[in-house]
Amino acid sequence: MKTEEAITHTKEDASKGIYDHACDVIIGGVSRNTVYRKPHPYYAESAKGCYVKDIEGTERIDFANNMASLIHGHVHPKITEAVIEQIQRGSAYTLATEAEVRLADHLTKRVESIQKVRFVNSGTEAVMTMIKAARAYTGKPMIAKAEGAYHGTYDFAEVSQVTSPSKWGSLKHPNSVPLVKGTPKEVTDLVAIFPFNDIKKTLDILDSHKDKIACVLIDPVPHRVGLTKATNEYIEAIYKWTRENNALLCFDEVVTLRVHYGGAQDDYSVKPDLMSMGKMIGGGYPVGALAGRTDVMDVLNPQKTRLRFPHSGTFSANPVSMTAGYMAMEMFDQEAVYALNALTMRARKQIEEAGRIADIPLSLTGAGSMFRVHFRENPPLSFREAYQNEEERAIIKAVLDHLFFESNIMMINTCACMFSTVMTGKEVDRLSEGMLNAFKAIKPKLIEANLIK
Amino acid sequence: MKTEEAITHTKEDASKGIYDHACDVIIGGVSRNTVYRKPHPYYAESAKGCYVKDIEGTERIDFANNMASLIHGHVHPKITEAVIEQIQRGSAYTLATEAEVRLADHLTKRVESIQKVRFVNSGTEAVMTMIKAARAYTGKPMIAKAEGAYHGTYDFAEVSQVTSPSKWGSLKHPNSVPLVKGTPKEVTDLVAIFPFNDIKKTLDILDSHKDKIACVLIDPVPHRVGLTKATNEYIEAIYKWTRENNALLCFDEVVTLRVHYGGAQDDYSVKPDLMSMGKMIGGGYPVGALAGRTDVMDVLNPQKTRLRFPHSGTFSANPVSMTAGYMAMEMFDQEAVYALNALTMRARKQIEEAGRIADIPLSLTGAGSMFRVHFRENPPLSFREAYQNEEERAIIKAVLDHLFFESNIMMINTCACMFSTVMTGKEVDRLSEGMLNAFKAIKPKLIEANLIK
Repeated sequence: MKTEEAITHTKEDASKGIYDHACDVIIGGVSRNTVYRKPHPYYAESAKGCYVKDIEGTERIDFANNMASLIHGHVHPKITEAVIEQIQRGSAYTLATEAEVRLADHLTKRVESIQKVRFVNSGTEAVMTMIKAARAYTGKPMIAKAEGAYHGTYDFAEVSQVTSPSKWGSLKHPNSVPLVKGTPKEVTDLVAIFPFNDIKKTLDILDSHKDKIACVLIDPVPHRVGLTKATNEYIEAIYKWTRENNALLCFDEVVTLRVHYGGAQDDYSVKPDLMSMGKMIGGGYPVGALAGRTDVMDVLNPQKTRLRFPHSGTFSANPVSMTAGYMAMEMFDQEAVYALNALTMRARKQIEEAGRIADIPLSLTGAGSMFRVHFRENPPLSFREAYQNEEERAIIKAVLDHLFFESNIMMINTCACMFSTVMTGKEVDRLSEGMLNAFKAIKPKLIEANLIK
Repeated sequence: MKTEEAITHTKEDASKGIYDHACDVIIGGVSRNTVYRKPHPYYAESAKGCYVKDIEGTERIDFANNMASLIHGHVHPKITEAVIEQIQRGSAYTLATEAEVRLADHLTKRVESIQKVRFVNSGTEAVMTMIKAARAYTGKPMIAKAEGAYHGTYDFAEVSQVTSPSKWGSLKHPNSVPLVKGTPKEVTDLVAIFPFNDIKKTLDILDSHKDKIACVLIDPVPHRVGLTKATNEYIEAIYKWTRENNALLCFDEVVTLRVHYGGAQDDYSVKPDLMSMGKMIGGGYPVGALAGRTDVMDVLNPQKTRLRFPHSGTFSANPVSMTAGYMAMEMFDQEAVYALNALTMRARKQIEEAGRIADIPLSLTGAGSMFRVHFRENPPLSFREAYQNEEERAIIKAVLDHLFFESNIMMINTCACMFSTVMTGKEVDRLSEGMLNAFKAIKPKLIEANLIK
């Protein structure tokens, strides 16, 4: 596929040129709003380890890792080799493959709450399948989720993913706010919204729908809520509530599986009934998975004469994603998790130090190998605290742009980093240096916005 | 990943052994009910062209092609080469890639109704995104779909995908039957079900919900309805209705895009506003796409200040699927489409001849490079006519088992074939020979079931 065209891409405006063409054939020019950037997105030429090169030839350190999916960075030789071996034998069959059994076996041994797995194609499909399974198991129609939490693009899961002061209502009864125009009212009415980490208010809200709630959906370290961990007391309280009310505790660990060897759930004294996975378990290839207790997962079991939840998918458990995922997860062993988390902690400390040097208000939230930067003295403890107005969003954007263009560093657009195992102290130093420079550059804006008092 | 283990798989019961292990870690032992088979599924070792070898070493001709997704069969050298080149440069980035623009450009030129594209990860995601886009554009909450039609696993799209005489109600007002236990009544109530290809009844049903219907969802050659083409009059009538009632005509061409160079829609004088794609446009790798009119697709446009439908996806438009898909579609040019359809027609004729020789009732339905075999004198014209009782399903299973074990031929479990461009007259001859033998073998069952009068 590399043709003469590729040569012309060393030009400075190569990305702009492709984007102009993209706008003629792809709506808005991008298939993922994540990669959208004004005046135009950048186009990747190649990547290796923790570095990505765009078609202009600029190489950047990649702290986004395709939204947390590349736990070993780009083109890890062991993953690439295994994938090449597989695709020469086939990329998909109308038969089962050993590769899916190998990855499922690994996951059941790795994560305490997993007794059985079913693979799908994306985190979105994983969460949708999980919600449908919870309804099939309990026979109840509603779900409950945290205000501001992202769980993919199934419409029930995206209620109140984005909300704002004019829409969100009281904290005691947060409104169910549709993300997409035209979302049927019937959908939002079937989703109860609660404030993350607030035990009393959450239980009151759950109580008011207790006969109808099939599951409580929780991302234990929800990125868009502020990337703050759920407390053990909070998870215990919800777990207890679900036991008493014929409901399931469902964890979305699509992102957070990386936090500990056995997922973010290792931090809690109780475990979810069902969980969704995605991102890193595909080793850089499209994947999703639903997993959990055998008796609940049984709703999907085709061996049963009365199958409650018939389910299939053309590319589900395709051997490419399964092979890459198995290799990635095997390499991300206990020791690798510890080392990565330690490196990430070092980065957090260095960035906090950079904040002190620049003398700006700064706090970092996160867990394991991920963190998010907030321009405020104290870390936000709730979604509404973490909520950014337009001015604050402009500051975040200025920091990200500074890092991208001045320091050649890529991060996630919430000002978050997702580390990969191929990173070293060198990249951490470049990150904290880049941060320091960005902090100095945006300090006048912080003063202007009255964020420095 | 090929280890000593692989060597032990030449044993006769290798698949059974893996399946026993699979049942411990994957619910029911499979991640796709499609590959489920009693007493156990078979596991693929490798594939090449139109042949798949299981781990017992048996090689079969593959007429299933991973549920219609492998238009050039397995491991096509050009696709494999392009994919290997790409994955050595990266499998996914948090940046855009040229590969998505190339495939989108091809699709907009190829299919008349496509002005803009957006890629997703599966056919399921494509249909879900299409329905959400139709609601966002019209502001209306309902959809209408054909009884029995399969459109993936989004719950709104799977209403009445499976139904039966005891549940389906009158043909004038077919019931909206949930597929999955626990599907909220609010979901089924938002889906109007109509009888495929019946103009009067369909329009009456649409009329009775006209203020609420956002889109009419149509697979123009719906596999599970009977694989019979929608008539031009039918599509015209629905198109006209949608114009008059602020609704969209949405085609599901996930499977049917293969029918003509420009998709099954080439057969109709009117074109859909939106369409979903998947399967072959990924060249054997996970993919989905939504496409259509610019003004409708604009609901997804992140350039707009008031974005009606925010949407992203970690693996959407990943360069592996885009690269494989572009290569597959480029090779499936006008000439290749003609040749494949002609080969498929030859197979249909030979199978009809086999039916005459065996003297059994037989009819074939289908379009382009796909067909379905029915054990009845006249082809079914509607879902309810095509509906099979338990006895008929047992006969289909006996035919498929006979082909699988006696003739080493794989088909789709509805007794359907999806051809690939690497097939030749040799495979067609083996198919019709295998069919003849199967027909003879099951003839006593047909007599027993009173299907031969």
